Formats: sequence, structure tokens, C-alpha cells
Amino acid sequence: MQPSYDVVIRHGLVATACETMETDIGIRGGQVVALGKGLEAGRTEIDASGKLVLPGGVDAHCHFDQPMGEEGLKMADDFLSGTRSAACGGTTTVIPFAAQIQGESMRAAVEDYHRRAEGKALVDYAFHMIVTDPTATVLNEELPSLIAQGYTSFKIYMTYDDMKLNDRQILQCLAVARKHGALAMVHAENTDCIAWLTEVLESAGHTEPRYHAQARPMVAEREATHRAIALSELVDVPILIVHVSGREAIDQIRWAHGHGLRIYAETCPQYLFLTASHLDGGYEGAKCICSPPPRDKANQRIVWDGLSDGLFTIVSSDHAPFRYEGTDGKKPGGKEVEFQYIPNGIPGVETRLPLLFSEGVRTGRISLNQFVALTSTNPAKLYGLNPRKGTIAIGSDADIAIWDPEKQVTITNSMLHHNVDYTPYEGMQVTGWPVTTLVRGQIVWDSGQVVGTAGYGQFLPCGKPDMARPKVSDTAAAGHYVGNLPTALSKLARSAHA
Amino acid sequence: MQPSYDVVIRHGLVATACETMETDIGIRGGQVVALGKGLEAGRTEIDASGKLVLPGGVDAHCHFDQPMGEEGLKMADDFLSGTRSAACGGTTTVIPFAAQIQGESMRAAVEDYHRRAEGKALVDYAFHMIVTDPTATVLNEELPSLIAQGYTSFKIYMTYDDMKLNDRQILQCLAVARKHGALAMVHAENTDCIAWLTEVLESAGHTEPRYHAQARPMVAEREATHRAIALSELVDVPILIVHVSGREAIDQIRWAHGHGLRIYAETCPQYLFLTASHLDGGYEGAKCICSPPPRDKANQRIVWDGLSDGLFTIVSSDHAPFRYEGTDGKKPGGKEVEFQYIPNGIPGVETRLPLLFSEGVRTGRISLNQFVALTSTNPAKLYGLNPRKGTIAIGSDADIAIWDPEKQVTITNSMLHHNVDYTPYEGMQVTGWPVTTLVRGQIVWDSGQVVGTAGYGQFLPCGKPDMARPKVSDTAAAGHYVGNLPTALSKLARSAHA
Amino acid sequence: MQPSYDVVIRHGLVATACETMETDIGIRGGQVVALGKGLEAGRTEIDASGKLVLPGGVDAHCHFDQPMGEEGLKMADDFLSGTRSAACGGTTTVIPFAAQIQGESMRAAVEDYHRRAEGKALVDYAFHMIVTDPTATVLNEELPSLIAQGYTSFKIYMTYDDMKLNDRQILQCLAVARKHGALAMVHAENTDCIAWLTEVLESAGHTEPRYHAQARPMVAEREATHRAIALSELVDVPILIVHVSGREAIDQIRWAHGHGLRIYAETCPQYLFLTASHLDGGYEGAKCICSPPPRDKANQRIVWDGLSDGLFTIVSSDHAPFRYEGTDGKKPGGKEVEFQYIPNGIPGVETRLPLLFSEGVRTGRISLNQFVALTSTNPAKLYGLNPRKGTIAIGSDADIAIWDPEKQVTITNSMLHHNVDYTPYEGMQVTGWPVTTLVRGQIVWDSGQVVGTAGYGQFLPCGKPDMARPKVSDTAAAGHYVGNLPTALSKLARSAHA
Amino acid sequence: MQPSYDVVIRHGLVATACETMETDIGIRGGQVVALGKGLEAGRTEIDASGKLVLPGGVDAHCHFDQPMGEEGLKMADDFLSGTRSAACGGTTTVIPFAAQIQGESMRAAVEDYHRRAEGKALVDYAFHMIVTDPTATVLNEELPSLIAQGYTSFKIYMTYDDMKLNDRQILQCLAVARKHGALAMVHAENTDCIAWLTEVLESAGHTEPRYHAQARPMVAEREATHRAIALSELVDVPILIVHVSGREAIDQIRWAHGHGLRIYAETCPQYLFLTASHLDGGYEGAKCICSPPPRDKANQRIVWDGLSDGLFTIVSSDHAPFRYEGTDGKKPGGKEVEFQYIPNGIPGVETRLPLLFSEGVRTGRISLNQFVALTSTNPAKLYGLNPRKGTIAIGSDADIAIWDPEKQVTITNSMLHHNVDYTPYEGMQVTGWPVTTLVRGQIVWDSGQVVGTAGYGQFLPCGKPDMARPKVSDTAAAGHYVGNLPTALSKLARSAHA
Repeated sequence: MQPSYDVVIRHGLVATACETMETDIGIRGGQVVALGKGLEAGRTEIDASGKLVLPGGVDAHCHFDQPMGEEGLKMADDFLSGTRSAACGGTTTVIPFAAQIQGESMRAAVEDYHRRAEGKALVDYAFHMIVTDPTATVLNEELPSLIAQGYTSFKIYMTYDDMKLNDRQILQCLAVARKHGALAMVHAENTDCIAWLTEVLESAGHTEPRYHAQARPMVAEREATHRAIALSELVDVPILIVHVSGREAIDQIRWAHGHGLRIYAETCPQYLFLTASHLDGGYEGAKCICSPPPRDKANQRIVWDGLSDGLFTIVSSDHAPFRYEGTDGKKPGGKEVEFQYIPNGIPGVETRLPLLFSEGVRTGRISLNQFVALTSTNPAKLYGLNPRKGTIAIGSDADIAIWDPEKQVTITNSMLHHNVDYTPYEGMQVTGWPVTTLVRGQIVWDSGQVVGTAGYGQFLPCGKPDMARPKVSDTAAAGHYVGNLPTALSKLARSAHA
Repeated sequence: MQPSYDVVIRHGLVATACETMETDIGIRGGQVVALGKGLEAGRTEIDASGKLVLPGGVDAHCHFDQPMGEEGLKMADDFLSGTRSAACGGTTTVIPFAAQIQGESMRAAVEDYHRRAEGKALVDYAFHMIVTDPTATVLNEELPSLIAQGYTSFKIYMTYDDMKLNDRQILQCLAVARKHGALAMVHAENTDCIAWLTEVLESAGHTEPRYHAQARPMVAEREATHRAIALSELVDVPILIVHVSGREAIDQIRWAHGHGLRIYAETCPQYLFLTASHLDGGYEGAKCICSPPPRDKANQRIVWDGLSDGLFTIVSSDHAPFRYEGTDGKKPGGKEVEFQYIPNGIPGVETRLPLLFSEGVRTGRISLNQFVALTSTNPAKLYGLNPRKGTIAIGSDADIAIWDPEKQVTITNSMLHHNVDYTPYEGMQVTGWPVTTLVRGQIVWDSGQVVGTAGYGQFLPCGKPDMARPKVSDTAAAGHYVGNLPTALSKLARSAHA
Repeated sequence: MQPSYDVVIRHGLVATACETMETDIGIRGGQVVALGKGLEAGRTEIDASGKLVLPGGVDAHCHFDQPMGEEGLKMADDFLSGTRSAACGGTTTVIPFAAQIQGESMRAAVEDYHRRAEGKALVDYAFHMIVTDPTATVLNEELPSLIAQGYTSFKIYMTYDDMKLNDRQILQCLAVARKHGALAMVHAENTDCIAWLTEVLESAGHTEPRYHAQARPMVAEREATHRAIALSELVDVPILIVHVSGREAIDQIRWAHGHGLRIYAETCPQYLFLTASHLDGGYEGAKCICSPPPRDKANQRIVWDGLSDGLFTIVSSDHAPFRYEGTDGKKPGGKEVEFQYIPNGIPGVETRLPLLFSEGVRTGRISLNQFVALTSTNPAKLYGLNPRKGTIAIGSDADIAIWDPEKQVTITNSMLHHNVDYTPYEGMQVTGWPVTTLVRGQIVWDSGQVVGTAGYGQFLPCGKPDMARPKVSDTAAAGHYVGNLPTALSKLARSAHA
Repeated sequence: MQPSYDVVIRHGLVATACETMETDIGIRGGQVVALGKGLEAGRTEIDASGKLVLPGGVDAHCHFDQPMGEEGLKMADDFLSGTRSAACGGTTTVIPFAAQIQGESMRAAVEDYHRRAEGKALVDYAFHMIVTDPTATVLNEELPSLIAQGYTSFKIYMTYDDMKLNDRQILQCLAVARKHGALAMVHAENTDCIAWLTEVLESAGHTEPRYHAQARPMVAEREATHRAIALSELVDVPILIVHVSGREAIDQIRWAHGHGLRIYAETCPQYLFLTASHLDGGYEGAKCICSPPPRDKANQRIVWDGLSDGLFTIVSSDHAPFRYEGTDGKKPGGKEVEFQYIPNGIPGVETRLPLLFSEGVRTGRISLNQFVALTSTNPAKLYGLNPRKGTIAIGSDADIAIWDPEKQVTITNSMLHHNVDYTPYEGMQVTGWPVTTLVRGQIVWDSGQVVGTAGYGQFLPCGKPDMARPKVSDTAAAGHYVGNLPTALSKLARSAHA
């Protein structure tokens, strides 16, 4: 007689974004098909006694094998090492970025990115797009058809010379997002402030890594955040502010909420665990260079408060893998370069969940359900992957991380599975780590061994991000601006350039 | 052979606070024991094709058979009619109030209230307490032991002469809440402002029901809300502001969130569907007298925004059943009395869910999952009843409402099951209504018939309200005040009077 | 031939709240009668070369010879020593308080206070009232007639057991202020918070002076400030929040301004120069006990910002003279008492101007004109004494302080002229001090010598405080509340109880 | 025997920014030399019985004979008609703009502008600069030397294609302002928002004048205001936000004040007296096209509140004179053009003071002293012209407007003295008008006759704007950003590019 289930996970404490329950899980055909105690036998039996059984993480902000504009610069992780690292940290879905190159096609970027992912991933993946050159073709043809095909989110940069859009381009992109139901993610830093400060610092001879933090003060992030909110308000379409670092941007987002605007917010472990002082101490500080930079202890607390009280919708890693040594990373060819030439970004796809679990859930700052919501369910919903991803429910993919909540780990780079030669969290002690990870019912990480296979991971077309819908028409924001336009015009405004 | 399940609900779309899934539900021993498609047969089979299957509602703010201080005044609903009405509106757990009478014992009030509930309820129930006389005995003996026995929440009134506490009494109560892990609910209106305005209005001959709204302006609610927040901040313990009516109190709560304070908020259908103009039009306006009063359309929108963006944690009915005609209600013995003598409160335990579903979920203002969270899961969590109540999960009580989402209903009092002779929502049209309600696996409402039995409903001792814990010690609020006290004192402050 | 002028002050740099000019000043009959260079000779000639010639200070918040409720407690300064000290510090008008004793008449208090002032003052004086028992007689008869007779301001306490009013009493008093055109001054601290914290501290054995600051945290001041603003908003009449200590109350006042409310604010030198740490170091800390207590350096900066940007209208001393040694002061009979029994208040009528000049004007935090406005012109206007007082203008009283802006002084109690045995500013170094003071053209302080005569100072009936008028009717505040009442009622509301 | 005075003004009620006094005024050599009653005879005697005698207005924002980039467009007023109109409205000092043409020299613009003013002005004048092309030469050479020569303020545009600076250019200009002590004035509207909306509107066929208001919504002004504040904060130098139109920008400015930032604000009569509805009603709406556009009644009230409570420092006209008919104005050659091609700006130099006096002072919204401060004293101080201008004081220029406060006037264009063929205030009734205007003791407008002479008006080099100094170093703003830089760098930052 055939076993009823391919896999049964027994005796664990299962938690989702809203439940905590003792139940077995029956898996068949890669999906969760049964919940209940005393399920019949499965072909594979997993004993989760004393363990937490959580939906696998969804890391909705990570960079793998992204073509870099600058010569000689290369990301250390491709889809193989990136998704391997993800799996070992309990993450079962990743959403890296297909980045348009200025002057080239958005669709070409997506196709190229499929080639890069092909045959490599251990876990499932979707793509965000990065729009760097919103030509009429991109706005009117490529984006609408790509959105319809499951690429339903795109990132907009307000800084970085080879990426940034001006306000008008942003408005055009937001109008596309509104018309076609996509979600725009915004990197909010004022590029001119940064450029001016960088020049001031450079002319003073201040070129060490620590000056990276001084070149990107909170006021530059706050200004761009307010501006992004204003542009979103004008077009009447929600946006997500990514990697929010501290009080000043948070205050703007809370102000927006108080004015009835749908502004979503993301933060990352670097703003909860690092400070600007991690950029001190000589050139090694380059290891912690990311943008926006980490702030200070007081700001960390404010970011924690934002997780606790619901200001933030998601926590992502912003994994951006550059090696410290070697020819193509932070210290190119062993040479110490000025801070503005050090690639921005730090690795973190594997440590995201354990760090947040240890300092968030175990200390009581957030509940276990909030942890699941912030790191898995909410990103899956935000990007149209739920209910397939982000939960343990009947019919959902059996993407599951089994955690030993008492496991004590001192983080060190040698235990991690990315291809970067350092971790910014070296030496930190955490309690709790995923001991087994399943993707669609298949074990990919277990007892310290990677057992997944390159190419097992599948591409996920995203549905409409439910959270990206405009406000109901009688609400404040719409009323203020677009709603004041004549009706015909209002419709037009909503479809402008698209 | 015995069927595996007492009941199986098949082919419905099941939604919880975080999932929406197609699954059957297997129920045994009053609990959900299996989720999955194609479950074996149950003794009872329910076909939920085309229906929504939701956790039964938890109405955490309703008044049944509460002894009234004033002679001749009587609540129209006891535990029988009140819970019957609840069940017919899809609500499976209610939490009414055991109110201390000034000069008497809190425990006596609880015991009395048990007697009133005994043998009557169709659905399960817990008790909040109302503290009106926090003597040393109440603070040091009764409350601690009652909290330990499952009465883990109590309400504090800042207005009403026979109920109100002064600020020092509130501080003493909050200190008890902090030490023993209870949640304080606060009715926030400035009683002196109301009394002064009432006198001003009365001396001008303005005594019709419509002046009730003018006697209780938003500034009186805002002031008391700010004060309650300040007292909560001083003691460093979360509170819930109940029945928030509009922008001014909301602004204060949002301000508190922005300062890292744990302030929870509740609103009610009257602030989403009624306005002060419902108090106009002669004495019939008495039917819509409640406190705080409904405001205006602009404030309704702001309350909706607060549901959508997470400012509010729960939506309750504040069902307060007084008949319009008759000897003991709003028009006592047919006599039109001055507004300040009209009992405050309106019925709504049965209409709470359909109203919110129709105008919230169907219009897209909130998602189906938010609807479940606000009306069922969150109140269950807030008051320590989860995971037993508030969700559909393995091991949870099988409290389930099966909704026909397309059913069109024109609300009229004759169709409702409370014992009040009117509904403030008379004539409103809604789409969607619960067609079957189960409590612990037992059908209590089905196809327009009440089939539950008086006395089936059980008393629920509440666990610790998880949400009521103080902030982690290094956060803003604690740091400002109590945290600045010497450590020993800080501890003392936290246990003062308790 | 008669000289044209009694006094001519020549060659000084004259500054008022809005001008800085080189001019002589001709004085006749106690008034300024001529401005211009090269005035004809005066009977008395004063050479002010290299000096600043400023309007004499108006200290609108000081306590002299005020009957104390507590037995054995006595203010060290009467009208003689108090006004002597004022004159030596460049202040030419003082406004101390005629305090109603609970259960007694307001008029009796005013009459008693005149007897106390009679024949003693060296500088002119007006009276504020303190309302501690707003009976119908007080509200309907005494206050209206006293206001009409030139007692146009009264203080309301929200704390202190023998002074405090409840919210309803405050509303009644504000209604009188509105109807009769008086200005209410509010001491804003939540009395219940203080009482509760005091009990907590006491029960922990924390009774030293330093715990005074912990018993009166900023949250207690913020709460009462918000409440006072709400009450003012309800009645639609401006108020003055006195002795604002730091950020939290300031934030509330700024919030009020942003909502179109007329809330005036006062601060004092103790919030610019002292911190809570001045209460440390044993019982000597009692010397700096005042309420609200001084905060910290960060709050000092925020108070300075409030002076610079116009948030504050006036700076007063809140001179409250209690001796440290002796039988009737802070260490009664040499005994160290618990902090809650130490009289609240510190001396400062003589040091107010030099401290603010030195740290405010000389550092550039405020301009010389702002200094004059904050310490002389604005208080004179706020209390209806301008143009007679508070400026140097044709027809104004010749109340003038001639400053040596370069004079370096180390403050020490032995140089001061009050009757208190300490100064909280002992040892502070300031630059700039008044070298000559004239009251109505008469020199009262010159070259380090008191030359004024007891009894020279006159009582000043105050006119209508121009700043106390309600908002124009179409503005925000009125519109929200009273303005929403029917017109007839609105008028009534404005005259309630008066 | 020679009369002592050239002119004596007798029996008037003289008001300045801080005094109101009955005094005669003695004038000699163009200056006020004596104040006092019963002054000796003057060569000219003016009887001001029953009149108000005020400092002449200082209109610090007006455009005369400014070279326009666009062909065929020409300002209707040159220095002759412009200053004539000013004088007839009680204004005695104007500060129009020397505008740099992109690609050309700033100094050349100043020199050209002197040629345009030469021999024409009836009242005195200073120049602001407009920086449109901040090349290294402009920043490092021209601006520093021009500032030193008395051109101490410059305007920055964030919109208009031929004027606007990007954020980096603005930072560079602010750094110059900081180093050399100039004041930057900022026109704050987001140019990309406007361009995008204009395109949306145009593509919908909405080209009438009324759509001008829809193309420039408050959110575009708010965004740019926040951005300007952020740039000012980064450089740590005060700025002035010009022509603030309503709530949203005001909220940002108040937020800045609450964070300790020195942000000055200006508004204009169009935001107090006009609304967007004035742009309705066909092409005639073009007469009220200005930027930002007027908003609505609710916003008018909020602007009035800002005058009353000190948020605004100055009120200017922003007189921008374009004819409606004719070849070079709003309806070029009689042709109705699309709204975006209609020149922005309305006339108002003559009506500024009477409008504000009538609706501000007479209704009690602001005091007479506030009126003088906002329209004369404060602009004189802000731009370094005080004490010479902006007051009636010994040694000040005898620039005086004598008002008949009871004169009733219905505004109509035929009575005005500008060269524009309409006034937006046609038909408005005001009470109070200047009947005589003196510039440096010379009567230029009297009894309805212009009696001044072209060329009498002198150029005024401005001193350092006292209000433009950076914050004292220990305050909030500096501490946040620049103050966190190492000291050496901080100094550098402050002198960047200059």
C-alpha cells in the first residue's frame, strides 16, 4: 500500500503569521495537503519534537549575479551559492533583481537574468525588475507586458549615477505601476546631497571607509523618503520604501500613515545589529559599507519599535555579495580605495532569520507570529506569491524551515554557505537556527549538510501584489490631488504614459 | 466503524488572519483536528461550496445584563438573547463586563455575573472586569487573585459619575496591570468637559438628543486619550483605548506609536457607519446616542484608514442594549427626557460582522484576512484566548462562521435576534452574511434558524494577554521615565500598590 | 530758566523690542518726553557713553510676601527686599500674586496684598490673582469686578493640594476670562502623577532632594500642558502656560500653534541654566528645588531654541524666596526634611536679566531686541501695561536700565539684594550688568548703591491684555468646537457661569 | 532764524513694530531726528490728527523691468511706474531682482539692473540677486564680491526651466550664503511634478487658465519645501521660503521650527485674498495666475493663523506685472494661449498694505504692531536695511506713511498707479489707506497726487542679514549633521566651494 504522504513532519510546534499550533504536517506533491495530529505514515518521516516548524523565509531583497556597470566588479554569489546560503539560513524563496542597463531593454535584462538563474537555484525564485531607463518603449510596452507575465514589482533608485531616476521618470514609472497593478520599491537617498558631501569630504582628505557614513547622513535619506511619499501621493499608488535605516525616514513614513497614505516599509538586519562605528577601525570598515549606512544604537531601538508596532511590513536581507579580498570586491587587488569607490552592500541572506529570531523573538521584542509575518508571509503577500508561498496551509507549497530554538551559535564566516569571504556579524552569538529546510517537500538543508540540488529551484511568476492597489476613491490622499481633478482627467492621470 | 470526525465542512474557502485556502475541516471533540482536502466522512457533513469559512467572531466589547446603577434602567439583553444575537451574526465568543459597584467588592461582582450567565449562553464567554472603586483590598487582593483565575482584563472609565476613576486611581490600577500581567481598557473622555458643556447646553434649553453629540466633542475625547497615554507611559504598561471615534484621538494614538509606546486601539461600527446627524430629527435620535458619539463622514474615512493601516487592533460592537420604548430604556415610560438622562449605548452584536464585511472587505478597504484579524484573531490574542479561540487551526475550538458572501440583506430590526426594539442600522443594505455558525463543533445558527441551546456556552478563563507586556527595557518609553529612576525604584514603581 | 527736562540720558545706545538707535532721552514728569540727539540740558544729566539703555525689565512672575498655607513657612522677601532686588537687577515692574485662600474671598486676598505692598516697594507693581476656590461668588461677582478694576490676569494651578483646581473649575475660570477679557496663567503639572510617584519614591526610602526631579517627570508636565490646551480650545480663549521646562511641553505648545490655537508660553532662567543634577549632592540640592524641576542639557537647548524662534512670549524669574537655613525655609530649624516637604521655588528676580543677556544676547542665541521683547515689552503687553511700561517711547514711563555690556561679574549671593541666603547661580560668570536703574525718571540703583526709597513704587492697574482676545470667529479652533454649536449656544458657551 | 526741522509731523498716532505712541516727529536731513510732543516748528508742517503714522512699507519681493527669457514677453512696470505704485500704496523701499541669465555673468546682471533703475525710482531700492547658473566663477568670485558690496540676498528657483537649480547647485549656493553671510530665498515647487501634471492635463485637452492651479497642487509645494529645509539643515544655514501658499508647506515649516531649524517664511496677499476659484470663469482667470497658485478658503485661514502666531516673518507682494491685453502679456496679441504659456505673476505692490491693514488689523487678526513688523520692520531686518529702514526712530530715514484708518476704498484698477491693465482685487472694499507718503523726509504721495520725482529714489546697499547667521554650535540642527563631522571637516563643509 502506498503511503498517503511523501513526507510527514511530526510533533513540532507549527507557527504561521497568525497561529501557533501543535500539529503534524502531511506533504504530497510538494504541497502541504494535511494538517492534524496522528497523520498516517509518510514515505519520509521527520520528527520535529522540541522544534519549531515555520514557513520557509521569503527574502524579497537580495542581489545575486547581478551585472555590474563598473569594470572589474563582480558579485560573489550567483544563483547557486546565493540560494544555497539562503536554504541553509531557512529561506526558501528569494527575489533578486533583473536590472536594466541604461540604454538597453528591460526585457533583455529579464531574459539575461533567466539565463543566469537557469539550472542553478536550490530554492524557488522570482524576479524584481530594476528600471534605470524608462523610455517610452519601456513604459508603454515592456513594463506592461512584463508585469502581465509575472514580473510585478520594480525598483527605482533615487541615487547611484548609473541607476538613478529623476522625479519625472519616477512619476512615469509610478503611473505604470498604478495602471498595471505593479509595486514600486524605492531606494530613497538624495543623490545630490551625497555627491556634495562626498566632494566636501574628499577635498578634506577624508577618504577612509568610515566617511561613507558621513557622506550619507539621515537627512539625505529623510529628504528622499519624503519626496518618494509625495510622488506616490500625487499618483495615488502605494510604494515600498526599502531598507529604512532609522528615525528620520521612519518619522516621514509614520507621517504618511497619519495622512492616510499607503506607504510600505522594509528594514534589514544591518539597521538592527550594526552601527556607523562598524565602519571605523581602518579599511576593514569597508566590510560594513552599505547604503543607507547603519546609524547608532538609538536608531536601532527605533527600528525595533517599528517592527513591533507594525510600521514595517517586511524584513529583508539586502544581501549584496562583494568579497573583501580578491580582484573584484571591496579591496580590489588588495588596494585600499577611497570610500566612494568601494562597492555598497553586505552579505546576509543566510543570517537574516537567525539574527532576527534571536534578538527579536527570544527577547520578546516581537512575537513568533510577527517574525513569520515580517520575514515570510508579508513579503509573499506584498509580491503576489501568497498563498503559494509564505505560509504553512493546505495547498501551499511545502516550503518549511524546522528550527531548533535553543541551538546556540556563534556566527563565523566559515560556517556560512555564501561565496563571500566575510560576514559583518562575525562573532555574534545567537540562539536558534534552522536545522532542516524543505522546498516543495524536498529537503535541501539538514543537520548541517546541504542536500539540495542545483536547478531544483523554480522560477515563480508573481501575481498582482494585492497591497499595491490604490486607495478607495473617497479617502484622503486621492481627494487631495488626483481626486480634485475632473473625473475624466483623474482617469487620465492614472493612466498617464502607460 | 466510527466516522473519524463529528463534523466535516467541505469545499469552502477557509480564511484566517493570515491565510486563504481551499480545504476541508475535520472536527472532533469540539476542536478542529484535521485540515486537508478529501477528508474521510464525518457524522455530520456540511457542504460549504461557494461559501467562506471563517473563524467565529470574538466580540470583545459588549454589555449583557449588566446591573445598572440607575433605578428603572435595565439592559434589554441578558446572556440568552445577547449570545443568541451574537451567534446569528457569526460571533462565537463574547466578552461582556462584570462591573464592580462602588463601595462593593470586585469579586462579588464577578460572582454575581457568573450567576447571571449561568445556563443561558449559546456561545462561549469570558469576562472583563470594570473597576470602579480601587480600594486597597481591590488593588492588593482581589485583582491579583482574579487575574490569576482568568479575569485578565479590566476596564477603566474616565467619565460617568458612577464609574469614573481619577488619575491617581488609574495609575494604581495600571500598576496592578503591570505587575500581574493584565490589560487595562480605557474609556477616554474628559468627564469635566462633558459636565460643563452639558450644563451650558441645558441652561440654553438645548436638551434634545442631538445635543448629546455637542456635549461630547472630539476635544474631550482627545484630551482623555492623551492623558491615558501619558499615564500608561509613566507606569510603562500597554493599554487599550476602546471605541475610538475619529481623527483627534487617532492622532494622539499615532503620536504615541511614533514615540515607541504600546497603545492598542479599538473602534466600533458606529464610527464607520453613523454620524452625529443620526442624532438629529427629534427624539428618535436617542436611538443613536452612544459615547463617544459618532462624528462625521470625514472622520469615518479616517477611522477606515486606521483599520487599513494597522492603527487599530480590534473592532468590537460595544453592544449596549437599551430599548427605545418601554419603561426601562431610552424613552422611559414613553417620556422624552433630556439628553443627559438617556442611557448611552446602542445594540450591534449581530450586525458588527456583516457591516464590516460588506463595506470593508467587499470594497477593498481591508482584506479578508484583515477582517478576520480585526474581529476575531486579534481580540482573542489581546485577551489571552488564542489559540483556543480566534482562528481555524489544529487544536483550536471549532468556532466557525460559514458566510454566504453574495447574500444581499437589508438590515431591519425584525430579522435580528437581540431583545432591543430597534437597530441603528435599519434599512442599510449589506452584501454577505453568516449562514451557519458552529460553536465547538456544534451548530447554533443555520439557514435562518437558531438551533443552539441556552447553557451550551461555556465560561472561558483568559490567559495572560500576550500583548500587555511592558516594553523591552532599553526602549524609549521606559527610558524616559521609569527607566530614569534608580533600578531598585524602577522595580518598585512597577509593583506599586500591588 | 527752567531746564526742559528733569533728566537727560545722553550718548547711550538705546534698544527697544524693535529698534536699536543712538539717541538721547529727555525725561520729564516721570515720562519719556523727547528722543533725539543734542537735547537741551536736564536737571540731572546721565552720561551713558558705551552703555546700553534699555527699558527696565518687567518680571511678570514673582512671589513676594505671599501668605503660605503651611505653618512656619514664610517667604523671605517682602515688597521691600523683593523690589530692591528687582531694581538692582534692572527690573522696574514686578507682578507678584495675590493668592486666594481656599474658603475665603478673592477680593479679601487682593486687599490684604495691597496692605502688604503698602509703603514698601521701590519699583512699580501690579497684581496677578491666584484663584484657588472658584465659588459662584468668585466667578460671578468678585472676578468680574476685580478684572474691571485692573486685576486682569489670574493664575490657575493644576497641582499643589491647597491650590489646585479640577478641570471643571478651570473651565469655569476660563469662561470668565473669555467673557471679561482676562488672561489665565496655568501651572501645568499633573498632580496625581506627582502624588503617585512621590508615594512610590517615599515607600522606597528615596526622600533626598534629588528625588524631587524624579517625582515630577516631563510626562506629568506634558500631560497637564495638553490638557490645559484642550480646555482653552474648548472655551476658545487664549491662555499662558507658565514656566515651561523642556521638550515635551514645548512639543505640545507647538502642536497647538500648528492647530491655530493661541497658547502663550513663558520660561524662566532655571530651565536655561540649571539641570536636575543641581538637585544632587545631598541636602544642598534643596536650594534648586522648584516646579517643574530643571531637566537636562538637551532640554536647555530646546528651551533656547524656543526663545530664538518665537515659541516663547516671555521670560520671567518665578522668584520664590525661601531661605535655606533658618526656621521657615528649605531646611526648617536645621532639619533635613523629605523632598515633598521642602518648599518649591528659588530666588532669581535680580539675576534674571543678567543671565539671559550674557548667555542669550552675547552668544547670539537671541538678538538684543528679542531680549528686550521677552523680558520687558512682551510681558507689559501680555498683561495690559503697555505702552506705559515695557518700552522707551514718547509718553511711556521713564523706566530704564542702563547696562554696562562689558562688565564681568561672578554671581555670588553676597552681592545680591534679596533676603534669601543663597542663589542657585552661585559662582556663575556673566558679562553685562545693569549699572543704573530709573523708575519713572527716578534713579533707584546706581553704581552699586541702592538709592531708591521704600514706598516710591506705585500700584499699576492693568488694562485688558490685548493678547487674550479669542480667535476671530472663522478660524480653526472656534470652528471645531464652540463654533459648531448653534449660534445662540455659542454665545452662551462663551459667557457660561459669568 | 532757521526752523529746527525740515518737516514736523504732528498729532498723529505713531506705531512701530513694538510701540504705539502719540508723538510729533521731527525730520531733518531726511532722517528722523526728534520724537516728542510740542516740537518746534518745521519748515513743512504736517497735521496728522486722527491719522496713523507708520514706517513706510518695505516690499521685499517685487519684480520690475526684469529681463524675460521669452521673446515678446515684457514686464509692464519699470522702476518708474513700479516705485510710483509702491509709493501710492505706502511703500517706501522696494527690493526687486537682478536676475542672472543662464550662461552669463551675475555681475553683469547686477550692472544691467542698475542701468534699468537709474534715474527712475521714486522710492529707495535695494537688489536681490537671482542665481540661475552657479558656475565656479559665480560661486567663488562674483557672489562673494557682490555680497561684500551690499547684494546680500539671492533667490533660488526650484522650478521654471530657465531658472531652476538642481539640489547640488542649491547646496553650493547655500554654502556660499553660509560662508559670506548672505540670505538665500527659495521658490519651492517641485518642477518635475508640475511638468508631469501639465503634460497629463494637456493630453486631456485641459488647457484653460483654471488648470494652472491643478498643475501645481500643494503636494508639489510641500515636497519642495521639505527638500529646501533638508538642504538648509545639511549646510546649517538659514533660508527664507518665499510666497508660502497654504497648509502643507506651513506644516513643513512648523515641523522645521520644532526641530530647531532657522527657516524663515514669507507669504503674500494673494494667499490671503484669492482662491483657485479666481482662476475659473474662462480666460479672464489668467489674471490671477501666479505660482504657487492661490488655494482655498480653509488655506487662507491657515495662512492668517501663521501671520498671527509668528510663523511668517514677512509679507511681500510678489508684484509681477504682466498686462492682460496687449502684445506682451497674459493674452499675447489677443490670443488665448494654453495655461502653461501664460506668464506667472500678478500685480500688487500698491494694494499689499491696504489689503493687509483692512482685513488683518481692523478685524483683529493681527495687531497694528504686527502689521508694521510683517510689512516693514522685519523685511528691513531680514535683508540688512535696519535701522536705516523699517522703523520710525532717531537716526532712521524719514520713510513714513500717514494712514487714514477710516478711509473706505473700493479697489479698482483705474485708481492704481502701476502700468498693468488690471488688478486681481478689482471691486474689493477696504478700510484704511495711506494718504501721504514720505521718503527720506520728502513727500512723494499726498492727497491722491503723486508728487515724487523720478530718480529721487536711491540705491541701498544691504548689510549682513542678521537673521542669516548659522545656529549657535551646540544646537540641534548643527549637531545632527555637520556637527557630527570631525571639527576640521565641519569647518570645511561650511566653506565648501566658496
